[in-house]
Amino acid sequence: MLKKLTHLTIFLSAISAGLQAQPADKLTSFVNPFIGTGAVDASSLSGSNFPGATVPFGFVQLSPDTQDNPDNPASGYDHNDKTIVGFSHTHLSGTGVADLFDVLFMPATGEVKTVPGEADKPGSGYRSRFSHNEESARPGYYQVKLSDYNVNAELTATEHTGFHRYTFPAGAKSQVIIDMNHSLNKKRSYWSCRIIGAELRVIDNKTIEGYRILTGWAKMRKIYFRAEFSRPFSSHKMINGQRVYENEVFVNGTNIKSVLNFGENNKEPLLVKVGLSPVSLENAKMNMDQEISGWDFEKVVSEAENKWEQELEKIHIEGTKEQKQIFYTGLYHAFTQPNNMADVNGEYQASDFTIRKADDKKHYSTFSLWDTYRAAHPLYTLIQQERTADFINSMFRQYDTYGYLPIWQLWGDENYCMIGNHAIPVIVDAALKGLKGFDIGKAYEAVKGSSVRTHPGSPFDLWNKYHFMPENQQSQSVSITLEMAYDDWCVAQLAKKLNKTDDYTYFMARSMYYKNLYDSQTGFFRAKNDDGKWVSPFNPLQYGGNGGNPYTEGNAWQYFWYVPQDVKGLISLVGGDKAFITKLDQFFTLKDLPGEVNGNASGFIGQYAHGNEPSHHAAYLYNYAGQPWKTQAYVAQVLNELYNNSFSGYSGNEDCGQMSSWYIFSAMGFYPVNPANSIYAIGSPVLPKAVIHLPGKDFTVTTKNPSKKNLYIQSVKLNGKSYNKTYITHQDIVKGGTLEFTMGPQPNKKWGVSADARPLDSAFK
Amino acid sequence: MLKKLTHLTIFLSAISAGLQAQPADKLTSFVNPFIGTGAVDASSLSGSNFPGATVPFGFVQLSPDTQDNPDNPASGYDHNDKTIVGFSHTHLSGTGVADLFDVLFMPATGEVKTVPGEADKPGSGYRSRFSHNEESARPGYYQVKLSDYNVNAELTATEHTGFHRYTFPAGAKSQVIIDMNHSLNKKRSYWSCRIIGAELRVIDNKTIEGYRILTGWAKMRKIYFRAEFSRPFSSHKMINGQRVYENEVFVNGTNIKSVLNFGENNKEPLLVKVGLSPVSLENAKMNMDQEISGWDFEKVVSEAENKWEQELEKIHIEGTKEQKQIFYTGLYHAFTQPNNMADVNGEYQASDFTIRKADDKKHYSTFSLWDTYRAAHPLYTLIQQERTADFINSMFRQYDTYGYLPIWQLWGDENYCMIGNHAIPVIVDAALKGLKGFDIGKAYEAVKGSSVRTHPGSPFDLWNKYHFMPENQQSQSVSITLEMAYDDWCVAQLAKKLNKTDDYTYFMARSMYYKNLYDSQTGFFRAKNDDGKWVSPFNPLQYGGNGGNPYTEGNAWQYFWYVPQDVKGLISLVGGDKAFITKLDQFFTLKDLPGEVNGNASGFIGQYAHGNEPSHHAAYLYNYAGQPWKTQAYVAQVLNELYNNSFSGYSGNEDCGQMSSWYIFSAMGFYPVNPANSIYAIGSPVLPKAVIHLPGKDFTVTTKNPSKKNLYIQSVKLNGKSYNKTYITHQDIVKGGTLEFTMGPQPNKKWGVSADARPLDSAFK
Repeated sequence: MLKKLTHLTIFLSAISAGLQAQPADKLTSFVNPFIGTGAVDASSLSGSNFPGATVPFGFVQLSPDTQDNPDNPASGYDHNDKTIVGFSHTHLSGTGVADLFDVLFMPATGEVKTVPGEADKPGSGYRSRFSHNEESARPGYYQVKLSDYNVNAELTATEHTGFHRYTFPAGAKSQVIIDMNHSLNKKRSYWSCRIIGAELRVIDNKTIEGYRILTGWAKMRKIYFRAEFSRPFSSHKMINGQRVYENEVFVNGTNIKSVLNFGENNKEPLLVKVGLSPVSLENAKMNMDQEISGWDFEKVVSEAENKWEQELEKIHIEGTKEQKQIFYTGLYHAFTQPNNMADVNGEYQASDFTIRKADDKKHYSTFSLWDTYRAAHPLYTLIQQERTADFINSMFRQYDTYGYLPIWQLWGDENYCMIGNHAIPVIVDAALKGLKGFDIGKAYEAVKGSSVRTHPGSPFDLWNKYHFMPENQQSQSVSITLEMAYDDWCVAQLAKKLNKTDDYTYFMARSMYYKNLYDSQTGFFRAKNDDGKWVSPFNPLQYGGNGGNPYTEGNAWQYFWYVPQDVKGLISLVGGDKAFITKLDQFFTLKDLPGEVNGNASGFIGQYAHGNEPSHHAAYLYNYAGQPWKTQAYVAQVLNELYNNSFSGYSGNEDCGQMSSWYIFSAMGFYPVNPANSIYAIGSPVLPKAVIHLPGKDFTVTTKNPSKKNLYIQSVKLNGKSYNKTYITHQDIVKGGTLEFTMGPQPNKKWGVSADARPLDSAFK
Repeated sequence: MLKKLTHLTIFLSAISAGLQAQPADKLTSFVNPFIGTGAVDASSLSGSNFPGATVPFGFVQLSPDTQDNPDNPASGYDHNDKTIVGFSHTHLSGTGVADLFDVLFMPATGEVKTVPGEADKPGSGYRSRFSHNEESARPGYYQVKLSDYNVNAELTATEHTGFHRYTFPAGAKSQVIIDMNHSLNKKRSYWSCRIIGAELRVIDNKTIEGYRILTGWAKMRKIYFRAEFSRPFSSHKMINGQRVYENEVFVNGTNIKSVLNFGENNKEPLLVKVGLSPVSLENAKMNMDQEISGWDFEKVVSEAENKWEQELEKIHIEGTKEQKQIFYTGLYHAFTQPNNMADVNGEYQASDFTIRKADDKKHYSTFSLWDTYRAAHPLYTLIQQERTADFINSMFRQYDTYGYLPIWQLWGDENYCMIGNHAIPVIVDAALKGLKGFDIGKAYEAVKGSSVRTHPGSPFDLWNKYHFMPENQQSQSVSITLEMAYDDWCVAQLAKKLNKTDDYTYFMARSMYYKNLYDSQTGFFRAKNDDGKWVSPFNPLQYGGNGGNPYTEGNAWQYFWYVPQDVKGLISLVGGDKAFITKLDQFFTLKDLPGEVNGNASGFIGQYAHGNEPSHHAAYLYNYAGQPWKTQAYVAQVLNELYNNSFSGYSGNEDCGQMSSWYIFSAMGFYPVNPANSIYAIGSPVLPKAVIHLPGKDFTVTTKNPSKKNLYIQSVKLNGKSYNKTYITHQDIVKGGTLEFTMGPQPNKKWGVSADARPLDSAFK
């Protein structure tokens, strides 16, 4: 990959004069947007990331789609594909479900077919073949040579505007296709995706506007655009299904497209700015006008890159080039969302489908919370503190108009994907850490309200009645019981901080309900029906998916560890340290897989599956039972074997920053096992140096002798003093200081094993 | 029917003390909202009208639904049904396709089932049986006794607010069900109807709010409501699919309901005001607050009735009670829509799905134009002149945001139902008649723009290329050719008025393209393919529906007459007066029906089908060929046989006022054969007297000796002078005056037969 990028930089400067390769000391130079864009083979998972152009947390994410009706990967781009169907302006990064892909543009030459064409069939539709040798990407910039048309396409973006530069071959009949039906042809039927209405309208010979209204994973999305070209088109077609209208001003329908003809005088590249808005055509124009004046493509590329550089500078690391590439691409992926859905005037679509106005002009969405509450949001509370408050204020808006905090919020709208109410740990964590910019009273109202009002997947009436979820009344009952108990613990912590003693007692009691599904006979958390009897037969290897089974995207082995609020209680449930360690050892070594493994489970070490979230904290649990060197060994194994800097660099879907955030924390040496207790368990650091830049101060982590062999901690110093605990607190970090690790090839079985070395239940009294 | 109403008035005063029966001299007393609510048997058609409460042109039309997923009749109410499922707030009157039915309320007692239940199965779901003997309705008021619950339910409405009064039996456990899934259960799948999202939210113990967002015949509708009760509910259930939540504040989902419990203390009736808005919850509240303060149900009933009285007073007639009932119920149906979709602050959903604001607070929709341009809009140009301007300004808004004038506009949104672009005759007619309140330049821009931009159903590129619609490229080609030629004639007339000579010539030429489909061999308009060859085999009795056949909801016989812009040309095409008369005679006598008759064709006299629009002008065509007494005979036959004052009083769907407007004009003695040339052909008046009240003056029609036998005109006087023409002009009417008919049992074959007696091509030079 590295070799290829170097080659591409040369190719790029040859074909697009003026675009300077970035100086090597820029952190953006370590970001490889192709990481996570494909799987090595059909048995593994793509990270489901897209390689296209975006600014941090931007609404427009302009990227090539290799699939017309993307499903897997959900990013629309598969590194293994050989053709590109065009460039659409909105994408999801790392998700398991596909949506968005709005307003596809495709430059072409010659006689163009007006259907998208079948993937990877050369000459099919308006697709073009491409080669990774003629493709490059860096933060805020993407480039590809479309070989069937001999067109070089370059993309950059601002918050709401995509900027394209197409270099057509001299004398070729140059055209641009705009496809408003992209992503929603007849093949794609899940989530009942359907275009409700769409329009294209020629404003003048340099301008076209349009929109589409659709239902899909996001229940109802409206997406408006305005495109302005650097030179006039001489004629155009409007297409409605099979009907082609020559030079018509308007077309309305559900399957509409346009082909704009720019003639054969291609001395200058053709530029097009595409402003987008989820509110109106007027706002799309306003967004574009405010963000890009004139036609300086290089300037917009450079501004986008500077924005990324500024965000990446939150943490400076030393390490190998591969480590830097994984780390900074990880930060890049973590900062790709949530996305600010508000237009430049603050208007956004609220969860009640009205248009409302955010005074601060920020309304974030794409909250993949079942994934991101684990490590991505704790990372934001460290290095995106202002945005964390913005995220929380955005979540409050759903609470106000929808009644519950987000579960999985897409395009400002709840889709009830996955389980739990994991906005709660996000908000409680930020509140306990003392982040400013949101109202703590409102925070408590929202986390409590979302914990008492029964809603889909959260039947609190059953919870209060049975003290566990009965599988015959609520499927995924074991996973929900465990995750709900955790969320309840979080509510209790905020109640405690606010001296709401009764609430504290109530929610603490609920947080212990996890014990009611522990089956001491099998040694697992196991489903009961509402008659209180265990559901049989029981096989701890058996996988569940997203309903119809007590476990969510996992099995009883993977969910066994999900008591982050009470690891001590879990250890005691299983019979003490020794039994717990034995079970963990088994977990990491038991290789049996049943006939059917859930598609999200991948990246196996025994039963541990790093490719999906339920396992993410498990390797750190040895710290809690006195054998931290085993945490170090397995964390090192994950860091070294389950991440790399290739297109298939993740062991599963990247999941909106969660997979990357695991690496970012773990590579620095610590990880938030309980994402809301301000405690980080120490693992196996791999970076010689990492400096976290915090407001006014730095926290520096240094590691002596790190290597793939030197994976064991020999000793630790915190602020110069010998440190024997297997955790640090959030307070240790934010007050600034240094954490020094010394590594070696053999475990130091004396470090971190004393009783007081074990991670606390909470950093707060 | 009359008897029943009298009976009901007594019943009504008994059960709802305070509601006075209206004085007999009020015109509203002649409105029977049950006319058109059912078919006599399965072989005939319901008028598809609803009997519920509304104000003229109101947004809220609150009516009982006997069907949960209505299809036929599309009004939701079938007079033949025995149970009511509840009262929903929005309806269509007379259409062939069902939609709306928003926010269903149902009062109930005892142990209530929370599913709607199967139609007419007693004890099924929350339905109740009812009897027409315990049901009554008049303009702005509806009442029914729900016999399973012994609840008397009364309904009234303002523009945006429904007002319910439920009288529960003493001591019964009284409840109100709110069903947000009504009309969209699994059985109803056409037009891809689907709820995208819905919410219910208890605000306090007297208030509940909610909304639903859905796709259906209207592509995307949002409907918000706020309901305030006159006394508190003590507990409630929220229901999401199969899940029941006790006393939860919120519920979100696609199949949600609520049951509110009002206890057993039923001394006072329970009142509930339900404000609606297509924009937001805030607007729903604003609409309600502005329209109904306090809890005076009688006052709102009386205000609604007064609004109707004021509108009905546009025409005073004398006649039999049955004639008055048909006539005033007809006016009532004609004034039931178009509906003002703008909230009290002027906000409305535009055709690009944004919320916009109308400064005049009027934005009308529900334009069933293929039906209503024929006679309903000409009626509006006479007696709803201000609103006609409002209608046209509302249509301009679609032109501006959507590119074309409305074809069939529902809820502000084009649904491309039916054929032609019949906003054009509506706008041209109003412009030529000199109506004020809209911009004539804009009018021309819009009618011309909509006549040159190819769009679904209107392929002007083919029109310009072939000079007819080729069936193999555009189905329904004969009907479209004929109707498009007519619309083109209308554009030409406005071009002429504005001295746009080139445009006039161009559109006049297009208006003659109808001739290109005349097959002199068969004597019919017949389809050609794009090779210019006739489509074979040809059977003039063969029906088409809405695609797949050259004729739209009719056959070659019914479409033969559709050249209202050039009846002379048609006569000459067929070989002169005699041949034309012979063909008309055949049309009205040929009883052959093919195996399959389109479901909209009904009310037959030979091939003439009064139950659907293509025939509506045909009986008047004898005037154009010198035998006006045959016009008189067939018009009288339709008036006397195909209208009555029973629930099955129409011979087909009432079609948003068109069927009624035919009666209103024809009963007074004239009809707009060409709805945009300001000429009314004279038929067979049946009313002793009709006074049309126009701004500042009256036009009075008197008829001597009218009776079912005296159906022939003996003589006519206009403003006191003998009048021999078979037409009058719009100018004759609006300048005020008197038109006196003398009728007799035998034709006067000397009246109206001279060459200059025939209706002109246009009232304008």
